[in-house]
Amino acid sequence: MTPIVKNILDKYEGTSPAVKANLARILMHGKLGGTGKLVILPVDQGFEHGPARSFAVNPAAYDPHYHYQIAIDAGLSAYAAPLGMLEAGADTFAGQIPTILKVNSSNSWATSINQAQTGSVEDALRLGCAAIGFTIYPGSDHIFEMMEQIRALREEAEAAGLATVIWSYPRGGDISKDGELALDVGAYAAHMAALLGAHIIKVKLPSAHIEQKDAKKAYEKLDASTQAKRVAHVVQASFAGRRVVVFSGGASKGADAVYQDARDIRDGGGNGSIIGRNTFQRERGEALEMLAKLIAIYKNEE
Amino acid sequence: MTPIVKNILDKYEGTSPAVKANLARILMHGKLGGTGKLVILPVDQGFEHGPARSFAVNPAAYDPHYHYQIAIDAGLSAYAAPLGMLEAGADTFAGQIPTILKVNSSNSWATSINQAQTGSVEDALRLGCAAIGFTIYPGSDHIFEMMEQIRALREEAEAAGLATVIWSYPRGGDISKDGELALDVGAYAAHMAALLGAHIIKVKLPSAHIEQKDAKKAYEKLDASTQAKRVAHVVQASFAGRRVVVFSGGASKGADAVYQDARDIRDGGGNGSIIGRNTFQRERGEALEMLAKLIAIYKNEE
Amino acid sequence: MTPIVKNILDKYEGTSPAVKANLARILMHGKLGGTGKLVILPVDQGFEHGPARSFAVNPAAYDPHYHYQIAIDAGLSAYAAPLGMLEAGADTFAGQIPTILKVNSSNSWATSINQAQTGSVEDALRLGCAAIGFTIYPGSDHIFEMMEQIRALREEAEAAGLATVIWSYPRGGDISKDGELALDVGAYAAHMAALLGAHIIKVKLPSAHIEQKDAKKAYEKLDASTQAKRVAHVVQASFAGRRVVVFSGGASKGADAVYQDARDIRDGGGNGSIIGRNTFQRERGEALEMLAKLIAIYKNEE
Amino acid sequence: MTPIVKNILDKYEGTSPAVKANLARILMHGKLGGTGKLVILPVDQGFEHGPARSFAVNPAAYDPHYHYQIAIDAGLSAYAAPLGMLEAGADTFAGQIPTILKVNSSNSWATSINQAQTGSVEDALRLGCAAIGFTIYPGSDHIFEMMEQIRALREEAEAAGLATVIWSYPRGGDISKDGELALDVGAYAAHMAALLGAHIIKVKLPSAHIEQKDAKKAYEKLDASTQAKRVAHVVQASFAGRRVVVFSGGASKGADAVYQDARDIRDGGGNGSIIGRNTFQRERGEALEMLAKLIAIYKNEE
Amino acid sequence: MTPIVKNILDKYEGTSPAVKANLARILMHGKLGGTGKLVILPVDQGFEHGPARSFAVNPAAYDPHYHYQIAIDAGLSAYAAPLGMLEAGADTFAGQIPTILKVNSSNSWATSINQAQTGSVEDALRLGCAAIGFTIYPGSDHIFEMMEQIRALREEAEAAGLATVIWSYPRGGDISKDGELALDVGAYAAHMAALLGAHIIKVKLPSAHIEQKDAKKAYEKLDASTQAKRVAHVVQASFAGRRVVVFSGGASKGADAVYQDARDIRDGGGNGSIIGRNTFQRERGEALEMLAKLIAIYKNEE
Repeated sequence: MTPIVKNILDKYEGTSPAVKANLARILMHGKLGGTGKLVILPVDQGFEHGPARSFAVNPAAYDPHYHYQIAIDAGLSAYAAPLGMLEAGADTFAGQIPTILKVNSSNSWATSINQAQTGSVEDALRLGCAAIGFTIYPGSDHIFEMMEQIRALREEAEAAGLATVIWSYPRGGDISKDGELALDVGAYAAHMAALLGAHIIKVKLPSAHIEQKDAKKAYEKLDASTQAKRVAHVVQASFAGRRVVVFSGGASKGADAVYQDARDIRDGGGNGSIIGRNTFQRERGEALEMLAKLIAIYKNEE
Repeated sequence: MTPIVKNILDKYEGTSPAVKANLARILMHGKLGGTGKLVILPVDQGFEHGPARSFAVNPAAYDPHYHYQIAIDAGLSAYAAPLGMLEAGADTFAGQIPTILKVNSSNSWATSINQAQTGSVEDALRLGCAAIGFTIYPGSDHIFEMMEQIRALREEAEAAGLATVIWSYPRGGDISKDGELALDVGAYAAHMAALLGAHIIKVKLPSAHIEQKDAKKAYEKLDASTQAKRVAHVVQASFAGRRVVVFSGGASKGADAVYQDARDIRDGGGNGSIIGRNTFQRERGEALEMLAKLIAIYKNEE
Repeated sequence: MTPIVKNILDKYEGTSPAVKANLARILMHGKLGGTGKLVILPVDQGFEHGPARSFAVNPAAYDPHYHYQIAIDAGLSAYAAPLGMLEAGADTFAGQIPTILKVNSSNSWATSINQAQTGSVEDALRLGCAAIGFTIYPGSDHIFEMMEQIRALREEAEAAGLATVIWSYPRGGDISKDGELALDVGAYAAHMAALLGAHIIKVKLPSAHIEQKDAKKAYEKLDASTQAKRVAHVVQASFAGRRVVVFSGGASKGADAVYQDARDIRDGGGNGSIIGRNTFQRERGEALEMLAKLIAIYKNEE
Repeated sequence: MTPIVKNILDKYEGTSPAVKANLARILMHGKLGGTGKLVILPVDQGFEHGPARSFAVNPAAYDPHYHYQIAIDAGLSAYAAPLGMLEAGADTFAGQIPTILKVNSSNSWATSINQAQTGSVEDALRLGCAAIGFTIYPGSDHIFEMMEQIRALREEAEAAGLATVIWSYPRGGDISKDGELALDVGAYAAHMAALLGAHIIKVKLPSAHIEQKDAKKAYEKLDASTQAKRVAHVVQASFAGRRVVVFSGGASKGADAVYQDARDIRDGGGNGSIIGRNTFQRERGEALEMLAKLIAIYKNEE
Repeated sequence: MTPIVKNILDKYEGTSPAVKANLARILMHGKLGGTGKLVILPVDQGFEHGPARSFAVNPAAYDPHYHYQIAIDAGLSAYAAPLGMLEAGADTFAGQIPTILKVNSSNSWATSINQAQTGSVEDALRLGCAAIGFTIYPGSDHIFEMMEQIRALREEAEAAGLATVIWSYPRGGDISKDGELALDVGAYAAHMAALLGAHIIKVKLPSAHIEQKDAKKAYEKLDASTQAKRVAHVVQASFAGRRVVVFSGGASKGADAVYQDARDIRDGGGNGSIIGRNTFQRERGEALEMLAKLIAIYKNEE
C-alpha cells in the first residue's frame, strides 16, 4: 500500500478494518491504484433513462459484459451498477475489478422525486462487491425517508465489512433548476453525505451560482471564480478533505470538456471522476483513449 | 440437458445452482423441453377480470383442475397461477408440471394502479413450485413500492432456490394508453425487469409507437417495421439476450393472429409465449390443437 | 368421519393434516355433523353496530355466555366472535363447540371502508379455536392492504394448523349500493376469497342484478332467475365447489324468509348459513326453534 | 382473597394466572382492597394539558413523588402515569402501590385526533407495574391504527403477565361535541374496549343524550333518567358486568358533585373512579379528605 | 464522585447502573466535573444550516477534529454531533471527552417539520458514546411519529446502558413564531421530554410570552419577570428539578449576552448550556476565552 492511500485510510476513524480493506481494494486497483485518485464507471443509465437512450448509439453496450470489459481494459478503479447488470457478469469477471452495487434506482417515468431500493447488502456480499452505492435527493419531499433508508443500509453494510458510496443529488422541493448545480447546494449535499457516514461521496461539478439567500453572506469572501476553486470548496465541505469525493461527468459532451473537468477536479483536490455516458456512448476505441487520457491527467501526466 | 439449455443457464451468472436447477426444470419440461423455447399457461384472470368474464364461455374452466390438466396434456413448459388456484390441485398434479406461484394480483375494482401481495415464497416452497411470479407497473405512482416488494421477494426466493419471473406491464402516471404497448416503453420495461434480477421476463408484444419524446432520437436508426424486429429489440434490451423473455398473448383473438405472434416471437429471438385467455376461453379440443400448433411453430416445424 | 366430509376434505389439496383436522372439527360437529352442511353463529354485531342496537331487543344477549350456550344448545357447527367475546366464555365452554376467532372488525363510526385487526393467530391458539375469520371489502380503497393482512394471517394460521374463513363483502370504490349484492360482484368476491386461500368462504346471498358492464356479456347465457341458481353460480365461482361456501342471513327478518333462504342455499349447492342477528335478536325459545328448522332444512327434512 | 374478588377474577376466562394475579394486586390493594371497588389516581395531565395548567394551582404536584405519596397515603387501589412520571419514583415507592404504565399519550398541540406510544410492555415490566394503560379514540380517523396498536400491546402484555386497561374516549369523525358523552356512544365505547380484550375499562360518565339516529329505537325502552341507570347500562354493555369498569371524574369540580358521581357509579354497579385533576388540583389535606370520603362511599358507608 | 453528582444520580430512579454510569461520565468530566453543571458543545449545524453558513466565518471549523479539540481544550462536559462528524475523530480522541451521538437531523431544505434518523444506538456503542441525542418538534404534524421514534430508541439505548438526551423544540402546527420561545410552551416542551424518559433535557431559553390562551390563568400568579425566574419554572416543569436541564445559546450573539444567559441559567437552577454557534463561529482563542468564562460563571466565580 502506498503512503498516499495509507494516509487516506487513516482518516476513516471509527471504521472497521474490513471496511478499510474494501476501500483499499478500490484505491489500490487499476492504473490509478495507489495515487489516491479514482476513475469509476457507473452504468445505471438503463434504469434512469431506459436502454435505447443509453445504449442505441453504441449497441455493443446493451450487453452487460461490455461494461465490465471496458472498465477492466481501461484499468479503472471500480465498476458500479444495479443488481441485474452486475449479476450478468459476476462469474465471468469475478475478482477482476472492484464492484459497487447500486442499491437504489429511479426511472424516467417516476411520478415522485424518490428512488426504489432494488438491491441489498446481502446481494452485494453474494456478488463479491467492495461497496454499496445509494442516491439521496436533498431537497425532495422524500429526503427524510431516503436518509433513513441509507442509514439502515450503511449500518448493515458496515457490519458486513462493505464500504458505502453516497450519490448526493439535490433535487425537488424549493431547489430551482439552476440550484441543483449551485455551489452552496453542492457543498451542502457533499457535507450531508459525509454526516451520513459515506466513505466515498459523489456529487456533481458545481457552478458559481449561489442558491440560498441565507448562504450568500457566507460565500462573499470565498473565491469561486474557477471550477477548480469550487471543487476545492466541496472538498472542504467534505470534512476538510477527510472523505474521498468524486465528481460526475454529467451528460455526454465533447472530449476536451471532459478533460478540462478532470483537470479542475484534480487541481481542486477532488479524488476523481465517475464517468458513465461519456464512456459507453462513445465507440470502444475512442472511449478507451479518453479513459487513458483521464488517467494520465489524474497522474499529473497531462 | 441440451446444449441450448446449458448455454442459457450459463448466462445466469451470480445465480445459485438451486435457482438454475429450477430454471432447468422449466426449460427441460414438456414438448419444448430442451429447445430453449417456452409456452407457459397463466391463469390469474379470475383475479384480474373475475370468474364469469374469464370462464363463463367455457364453464369447465371454473374448475382449477381443468387448467393443470390442459397444461399437462398439451405438454406446456409451466403453469402459473395465484395461491388458491395452485393449492386446489397441488396434490393431484404434484410433480407433473413445473408451477409458478403468482404472488401478487390486482382486480377490476382496484382504485389504484397497484397489486396486493397474495402469496409468499413460503407458500411457493410448500406447494413445490419452481418459481414465483410478480407483476410491476412501471409508470404507476406505486412503482417504487412494487419494486421494493419484488426486491425483497426475489432475495427470499433466491435464498430458497426458487427462480423469479417478472411481469413488467407499463401503466399509469404519464404513460398514455397507446404508450402501454409502445416499443420504447416495452423495451424499457423489459430492461428494468432484468435490472431487478428477473430470471424470466414477461412483457407484451410491442407496437411500432414510440412514446417518449426523449427516446425518439435513439430509435431513429432502429428498424422497427416488423413485429419480429420489435421483439428482437426487446430481447436486446434484456441484456442482449442474456435473459429469457416471453411475450403475452393479450386478449382472446383469432387463431391465425396467435400463430403469427408466435412466429414473430420466434423469429425475433424471443423465448416463447405466456398464453392464458387464448387457451382456456376456447373449448378444450380446440385449445389443445392451438397449443400443439404453437409448439410446432417454436420447434420451427411450422 | 362420513364419506361426504372425507370428500370435502380431499378437495383441500396442499393443505396440512392439522388444518384439515380443524376443518373436520367444524364439519363433524353439531346436529349437521357429517352432512357437509353448516350453520354457524357469528356475534360481531357489537363491534359493527354497537351493543344496544344488537342486544337491547333481547337483553340476555348482552352476556357473552348467552351466545356460547345457544350455539351449543341448538347443535350448531361453530361459533364465531371477536376476541373479548370469545375470551369471556373460553373456560366455561371449552371443548363444547368449535370456535372461530374473528380477527378484524369495523364499527359504525369508521370514517374509511376498512377494518382493524383486533385479534391474532396466537390468540386463536390460546383460546382453542378451530379457525380464524377475516373480512375483506373488495372495491374499497383499502382492499390491497386488507388482502396483504389476510395473506400474512392465513400463512401464520396455516403454520399453526388453524383453518381460515374469509368474509368477502364488496363495498366502496366504484361499487354502487345495489352492486354490493349483485350476482357478478358476489361471485367475484367468492372467487377472490378462494384465490386468497380461504378454507371457508362467507358471502351474501346475491340478487339478480349485474353490476359490471364488462361482465354483462358473460352473464347473458347464465340462468339467474332464482336464488338457488344464483347460489349455484357463486358455488361454481368458488373453484367449482371445491371450497365450502356459506351465506349470511343479513338483517333481521321474518322466519319464513330465513327458511326460504336456507332452502335456496341448499338447493343451489351452498354449504350453509352464517346467521347472527336473526338468531340473537329473537327470544331464546323462538331462536332455538328457528335454528332447529334451519338444520332440518339442511338435512332435507323440510 | 375475598369472595367478591374471587368472583370477579373467575369472570376473566381464557386469561393466564399471571394476569389474574396482577388484577388481584389492584383489587386487593388499599382501603378498598377486597371490595371489588377501585379508586385509581391517574396523572397524565402533564402530557394532555401541560405542566402549568395541571400543577400551578398546587405547585407541590410538580414533583412526581407527590402523586405516589398521596395515592399511598390515601390508600388508593393503583397509580397510573406515563413513563417519566413513574420512573421518577420507581425505586422510592417500589412495592407500595400497584402502578399502571400509561403507554400512549396525546398533548394540547396535537394536530390530529390520535396519540403517540410513549412507553412499552418492557418498560412496564422493568418498573414493576401491574398493568399497561392505553387510550383509544373511537370515532377518530385514526381509530383503526389505535386498535391495532393496543391489539399488539395487549398480546405482548398478556404474554408478560400484565393486565390491560383501556381508556375508551369517543372523539372526532362524525361524533358531535355532545355525542362524546352520549349514552349510546359511551356504552358502545365500553363494549369495544371489552371486545378488544381490556381487563379494566375506563370511560366517562354518560349523559342522557343519544347521538346515533340508528340507535334511538334501541334506547326507547331503556330507562336512562338517572346517572346511576346510565352507569348500569354501560356496565351491561361491558359484557353484562363481566369486566371491571371505572369512570373518570372529568374536569375539576365541586366536592359534592364528585361525591354524587361516586354514589351513582356505585349504585349503577360500576367498579369505581379514576380521579386525577379532582385530586391533585386540591391542596393535599383537602384532597386526602375527599379521597377518604370517596372510599367511604364505595364502602357503602356514606 | 461528588455529593452533588451523587444526589443528581439518585433522582434517576428505575434507571440501570449502566445508564447512571454514563450520566456520571458526563457530570464528572471537564472543568465543571462534579459541580452538577454542564457545558456541552453541539455541532449539528452543518446538517441544519449547511457547511458554509456554519463554518465559513471560521474555516478551521470545517475540520471535524477542530471541534473535538476545542471541547477537550476548553474542558467541556461533552461533545454532541451527528454520525459522520463523530466518526471522523473517533479514534484520535477516543476516551478524551464523553460524546453524544445525535441520532436524528433536519436540514434547511426540509419540506416538512420533521427530522430523519441518521444514526443508531449501535453506532453510538461502536463509537464509544455516553449518550444518544434526539430532537422532537412538539406542535408539528409529525410529533407523534417523532415521539414513537425516540420511545423505541430510548428503550434500545437504555438496554445498551446509554443515556438519552432530548432536544425539545416546539415548532409548527398551531404554534406561532413567538410561541416557539413562549414560557408556557418551553415549560411544556421540557415536561414532555421528561415524560418521555429523557435523562438530559435540552430546551431554549424562554421569553415572557404566554402562547396558549388556556394556560394564561395558570401563569397569572407566576412571577416570570426575569430570565432566571423563567429558567426556574422550566426546571420546575422538569419534575421539580429531578432531571438535568440545559439551555441552548441560540444564534451567534455578543459575548456579554452569552454570559448573562449563563448567569440566568445558573441563578434559575438550570444545569448549564449547550453552546454551538457561539463557540465555533468565533476564532479559537476568543472561543476558548468565552468558554472559560462560562465555566467560571457556572462555578459561581463570576
